[in-house]
Amino acid sequence: MNTKINKDTTICMSLAARPTNFGTRFHNYLYNALELNYLYKAFTSKDLTGVITGMRALNFRGCAISMPFKEEVIALVDELDPSAAAINSVNTIVNTDGHLKAYNTDYIAISTLLTKYAIPTDSSFALKGSGGMAKAVACALRDLGFTNGVIVATNEQSGKALADLCGFKWQADMSDVEADLLINATPLGMSGGPEEGRFCFSEQEIEHMQVLFDVVAIPSVTPAVEYAKSIDKTVITGSEVFAIQAVEQFQLYTGIRPSQLLFEQAAAYSRSEY
Amino acid sequence: MNTKINKDTTICMSLAARPTNFGTRFHNYLYNALELNYLYKAFTSKDLTGVITGMRALNFRGCAISMPFKEEVIALVDELDPSAAAINSVNTIVNTDGHLKAYNTDYIAISTLLTKYAIPTDSSFALKGSGGMAKAVACALRDLGFTNGVIVATNEQSGKALADLCGFKWQADMSDVEADLLINATPLGMSGGPEEGRFCFSEQEIEHMQVLFDVVAIPSVTPAVEYAKSIDKTVITGSEVFAIQAVEQFQLYTGIRPSQLLFEQAAAYSRSEY
Repeated sequence: MNTKINKDTTICMSLAARPTNFGTRFHNYLYNALELNYLYKAFTSKDLTGVITGMRALNFRGCAISMPFKEEVIALVDELDPSAAAINSVNTIVNTDGHLKAYNTDYIAISTLLTKYAIPTDSSFALKGSGGMAKAVACALRDLGFTNGVIVATNEQSGKALADLCGFKWQADMSDVEADLLINATPLGMSGGPEEGRFCFSEQEIEHMQVLFDVVAIPSVTPAVEYAKSIDKTVITGSEVFAIQAVEQFQLYTGIRPSQLLFEQAAAYSRSEY
Repeated sequence: MNTKINKDTTICMSLAARPTNFGTRFHNYLYNALELNYLYKAFTSKDLTGVITGMRALNFRGCAISMPFKEEVIALVDELDPSAAAINSVNTIVNTDGHLKAYNTDYIAISTLLTKYAIPTDSSFALKGSGGMAKAVACALRDLGFTNGVIVATNEQSGKALADLCGFKWQADMSDVEADLLINATPLGMSGGPEEGRFCFSEQEIEHMQVLFDVVAIPSVTPAVEYAKSIDKTVITGSEVFAIQAVEQFQLYTGIRPSQLLFEQAAAYSRSEY
């Protein structure tokens, strides 16, 4: 029954050109389990300014921002957290008494994982992709002190722009790339799309590296991750990125950090509809 | 569990300076019973323009409008239904593909009841009150052809303005008023406020009239209604107004008219929290 919603229920939302049910299921599962009078709903809109105006007028507590609004929304908030300022991109807005502060919890999650896995900053790396998630990864690498890297992106304009932003090289494909750390920030291998089942890096490329970081979160084990694990390579997965960024976001909205067990239940529940 | 909400859930809302849980409970109860993927939430805001901008940007299906926004909102919608145009006051907005059409389902309900009870239009009447609901009643009386009436309101400015609008007389109190039809459109007798338990008209006044119309909906039997019934007078209650206006509103939002039984269950459920 959704009849327990009342006038005092706190609303959080997400905005994306192509919304999924993942966030709605994840957050509402946790609100329910933790008995928080919160409600989460994914929205789509072409009118970003109207959405942020409505968020203020209706006093929504939080808003997750997805493509293609992550940069445009910066002009509409009141304050940028360093995580958003570092990459000039927002994925989370928190509304505290009408003051909108913007964060990037993807950047936080990626920085946290690169630190947790103690990847040496003098490692060479190749980062595949030039979209929003690639930008979060590249800026995290830059800010942690990595210098010896290449952005691999078929889109020359966005690929070069990202490389220039972070002081890395750019090339269109993986030819002649040798790197300790391979990072996928493209949809290659993602469930439910045209890239499902594909390897983000070839078996040979994986054999020649030390660490694979695949930001694809669904499935939790992509073909490339499965192969890298099978030959005992270090692997960092998109599920780990999602776990950290989602928990950060949840805590920003509610002030509460769910337990690891509860998080896993919520993530499994959210994934079950895919 | 509110975990069944998803990205496709249709949102309806209400806006009021002092929101209650009544509408939220009523509509969500019916959505649930009818298995409609809808969600209703009451909001408050000081920024009416921002709310309507947000309603458009987030594509909310419907919005109930309460005090003090019923007239101000007219400038923000795209079309007025005759029910809202008749009294220059809105209590319901329906969003169809970005086109906002405004209605007044209170006016519809009052007109319907005066017609259903076949009150002769040459009856004399006294209408107590000069707020939004009094305006809906006065305009419905005017439009049905009633001419012989007095607006009884302690607020001379709004009382006279309403009387002038409809071609009725005004006086500050009930002294020397004799009328076939007595109508209460004030909070006198309403539960949960300072007027709880009070008679909207005196016993003597009720004894001298034919029909009592009390728009107070909670409790469903006010002290005045109880007394009028006890001496076999005709009574029209606020519960009947609410039933018609709420079902009209529900049908405008969803296209579905709940059965009488289901309506009564939803109304009882909504009232149970008061």
